[in-house]
Amino acid sequence: MRFTSEQRLDDGVFEREFTLGEIPGILWTPGSASAPAPLILLGHPGGLHKMYPRLVARARHSAAEGFAAATIELPGSGDRPRSAATEKARADLHRALDAGERVDDEIVDRLVLPLVEKAVPEWRAVLDALLSLPEIGGPVGYAGGVIAIGIRLVVVEPRISAALLFAGSFVPRTMFEDARQVTIPLQVLLQWDDEGNDRQLALDLFDAFGSKEKTLHANMGGHTGVPQFEGDDGNRFFARHLK
Amino acid sequence: MRFTSEQRLDDGVFEREFTLGEIPGILWTPGSASAPAPLILLGHPGGLHKMYPRLVARARHSAAEGFAAATIELPGSGDRPRSAATEKARADLHRALDAGERVDDEIVDRLVLPLVEKAVPEWRAVLDALLSLPEIGGPVGYAGGVIAIGIRLVVVEPRISAALLFAGSFVPRTMFEDARQVTIPLQVLLQWDDEGNDRQLALDLFDAFGSKEKTLHANMGGHTGVPQFEGDDGNRFFARHLK
Repeated sequence: MRFTSEQRLDDGVFEREFTLGEIPGILWTPGSASAPAPLILLGHPGGLHKMYPRLVARARHSAAEGFAAATIELPGSGDRPRSAATEKARADLHRALDAGERVDDEIVDRLVLPLVEKAVPEWRAVLDALLSLPEIGGPVGYAGGVIAIGIRLVVVEPRISAALLFAGSFVPRTMFEDARQVTIPLQVLLQWDDEGNDRQLALDLFDAFGSKEKTLHANMGGHTGVPQFEGDDGNRFFARHLK
Repeated sequence: MRFTSEQRLDDGVFEREFTLGEIPGILWTPGSASAPAPLILLGHPGGLHKMYPRLVARARHSAAEGFAAATIELPGSGDRPRSAATEKARADLHRALDAGERVDDEIVDRLVLPLVEKAVPEWRAVLDALLSLPEIGGPVGYAGGVIAIGIRLVVVEPRISAALLFAGSFVPRTMFEDARQVTIPLQVLLQWDDEGNDRQLALDLFDAFGSKEKTLHANMGGHTGVPQFEGDDGNRFFARHLK
């Protein structure tokens, strides 16, 4: 892991950009950490630069509770090399959405499954590197989308103790088998009035999770309108399980 | 309103039993209140004595945040005179449940609608009396079941500013029209794995509420297994809206 830039934000949070092989990412650590900090991995739909304002806000919020936070660019997003097959699947998806059609399961599979296959080992390699830093301890949580990546990651990665997942529509049907294998505490966020989201699929997926402790928080406000208070609720969820 | 007994609980909360006409109830006020306290009305399924342990726990939790809390006995429950029609409807309900049958809408209507018609004016009369006490201020919240009573009460009673509703199965279909008229901030609690509860009805009802701010919290743990942390979440919900 190579740090390529660093800056101290105005609230004291220490922000460092890094690369691990070809994977770019960002690490935020609390300004006032004395002991090694628990770590939250921040998932997002891809495009680190575009997502930066929302990611840094989430990281600062977590840092205020004593958590370190890290994110990486998804394969095929941002400045990373494109995959022709993924670009084709993405174009097919947008064509269906623009036409107001139901998106074929086959398109979702072509788009999401290769992304899950590539992103999960990358997250695990980055987790190895982060946990070797003296300022990062355990336990580890995962927060965000892409929900399919989050699900597979928490199934295969025993170092992740709790996850806050953002419900999204594009979940390959085969991922329900993964969902049944999830046993860690979960909090799932669903935007109830997100017209681009398949609400029934999100409810079915919540039902499928094997976790004994799972909580669904459904709110109004559209796709990007997650209420402010869910940030505090997320911190409390991780404080219950990572401290 | 006549106070019939009073005691100071070990955490300083002041508990008073009262009657208003033929309606018995309990009022809890915070030990350390200096200004008039905001008030939370605690709904329950009937049977004050049986429900007391859970009600006093909720009241103490609210008092710790500076809220007064009050509850009343439902018409036809506890020591109050029975209604033959309600007893018949209750027997029909239990017969259907014991036989593992779907409960007819007609039985739900016979059981719940008269209860709503009687309980709502009683709550409003008790609210008049409570708000005339110098130690009780506004604003006012409603928390608990019976959800049909809570819905009608917040539709007709403009002094209630926020409600935390417990999802339950026995909601007359005509109450969906009431639900659409609810506009105050809502938090709805649903026990996802409550086998005696109609989950789809609870989700449809959540969808029907007219409120711009509404949040659904679904948890595991069966009918009576609402997680401890929902008590804190409820306090924070009311702190956002009643303070």
